[in-house]
Amino acid sequence: EPSFFPAIQVFRALGARVIGIPADGRGMRVDMLEQLLLRYRPKLVYTIPSFQNPSNIEMELERRKKLVELSHKFKFIILEDDAYAGLCYEGQQLPALRSMDSDGYVIYLSTFSKSVYAGLRLGFIVAQKQVVKQFSAAKQVMDLHSNSVSQWVVERFIVEGKLDSHVARLCSEYRKKRDIMHEALSMRCIRGMEWNRPKGGYYFWLKLPQGVSASRLVTAAAAKKVVFVPGKPFFTNGQGDDYIRLNFTFASQKDIKEGIGRLCEAIAELLDGHREMDISQEFEIKPIV
Amino acid sequence: EPSFFPAIQVFRALGARVIGIPADGRGMRVDMLEQLLLRYRPKLVYTIPSFQNPSNIEMELERRKKLVELSHKFKFIILEDDAYAGLCYEGQQLPALRSMDSDGYVIYLSTFSKSVYAGLRLGFIVAQKQVVKQFSAAKQVMDLHSNSVSQWVVERFIVEGKLDSHVARLCSEYRKKRDIMHEALSMRCIRGMEWNRPKGGYYFWLKLPQGVSASRLVTAAAAKKVVFVPGKPFFTNGQGDDYIRLNFTFASQKDIKEGIGRLCEAIAELLDGHREMDISQEFEIKPIV
Repeated sequence: EPSFFPAIQVFRALGARVIGIPADGRGMRVDMLEQLLLRYRPKLVYTIPSFQNPSNIEMELERRKKLVELSHKFKFIILEDDAYAGLCYEGQQLPALRSMDSDGYVIYLSTFSKSVYAGLRLGFIVAQKQVVKQFSAAKQVMDLHSNSVSQWVVERFIVEGKLDSHVARLCSEYRKKRDIMHEALSMRCIRGMEWNRPKGGYYFWLKLPQGVSASRLVTAAAAKKVVFVPGKPFFTNGQGDDYIRLNFTFASQKDIKEGIGRLCEAIAELLDGHREMDISQEFEIKPIV
Repeated sequence: EPSFFPAIQVFRALGARVIGIPADGRGMRVDMLEQLLLRYRPKLVYTIPSFQNPSNIEMELERRKKLVELSHKFKFIILEDDAYAGLCYEGQQLPALRSMDSDGYVIYLSTFSKSVYAGLRLGFIVAQKQVVKQFSAAKQVMDLHSNSVSQWVVERFIVEGKLDSHVARLCSEYRKKRDIMHEALSMRCIRGMEWNRPKGGYYFWLKLPQGVSASRLVTAAAAKKVVFVPGKPFFTNGQGDDYIRLNFTFASQKDIKEGIGRLCEAIAELLDGHREMDISQEFEIKPIV
């Protein structure tokens, strides 16, 4: 963790006990996972190894290998979510976990939501036949099958060879937008703000200066017509109120610059308010909201 | 019962105890429901009052009123599945249960799968705001939202006033096909076959002659390239092997005639086999399949 919160919601809705694995700049802390495996013996480990949502981190090769090894040793399923496959803005993307596994411990899933169009609601899995059969049966009970029109559109798109050139176009566009957001953040940077420059994917994962909470910033930024997702839902344990997730692929280049300006204004204002409070109040009290 | 078996599957998958309510030519036996209500106090009653799947029966007005009354008295939710709304080939369709309820006991659901195109996978509900909110939240966890392209297509279709004329066209086409299937069945009728002429919907619900089981007929008919759904899955209690469901909307007029011919051939052959067995065997033994 942090991780894609709708996944956390789904696992919880199904009655699973969800335990977050800490991560750093090189991806999931696989060493810490090993300790947790011994203790909890989980059935499934969910991970987004490439351009993780929300942290944009790419899990390094050594950790990928180690993770697949662990799945064999401890007999658990890895659910590899590769939603941002192909959206790599620098160098080569690292191989998928699924490509390192020959015994069916990895269930690979991806989507056309990021590479083609989210409104299609179309994804796919790569897994052992048995698993695919069971998933199909479960899907039949839920919605019979995915929308046929979407499937035809995407099938045509792939067969005509247009998907690859489309993704290449997206990459050059998103790379530019990433650079613009990175520059805007650097220019307007406030002491205590931390972030990295994403190699791929959709998001900046921004640490806020001490004293600025994401949940209060949401309201302040919304007043300036800037929206983002606050960090808390991405954690399993209530942490994360010092983080926000910023999307850099949707807004126009102009709006990105303007938006980051307004966001940093809102942060600065909250920070001033916080300092004033610090001075004016000897004891910390709960603000009346 | 009988009823739409994917609904039965969904309820069971969610851990519900499913109890079938008997039905006759005028719809659900609401009098028998009342006895069962006293005994089981169910949370939800699922019903397809109009052109029921598979029986094509239209629940009569008096029973509709009584059912809605009972929901108020015993405080249960009615899930009204109106998939075949508008596909009425004679006279007027009876009012929906939802239209008789002003206190939110009826959740109405329907689909564009039958009236527009099944591949859209698009349906809708009419219910109290609170219920819609909870359903939306659950749907968000499942698939975020329905396919946008489908929604745009159908929205345009409705706004431009084309849905009504399309349904009218379907009705006249399906009425013709229904008549052709009815005639073909009447012409080729084998003693012991029973069915009614559907007022609406998609299906004939055919009772087979004694001695012909639907599960054996499936194989025999498939050899003649005729397929249908056998009756058993539509029941909650293992009954129904003497029924089959025939769709009359999909095949061409020519294929309907030809198909019913072949189906009746297969029935006749099974019936002959059954009679021979009766003669040749003094004691009934399990056939080796």
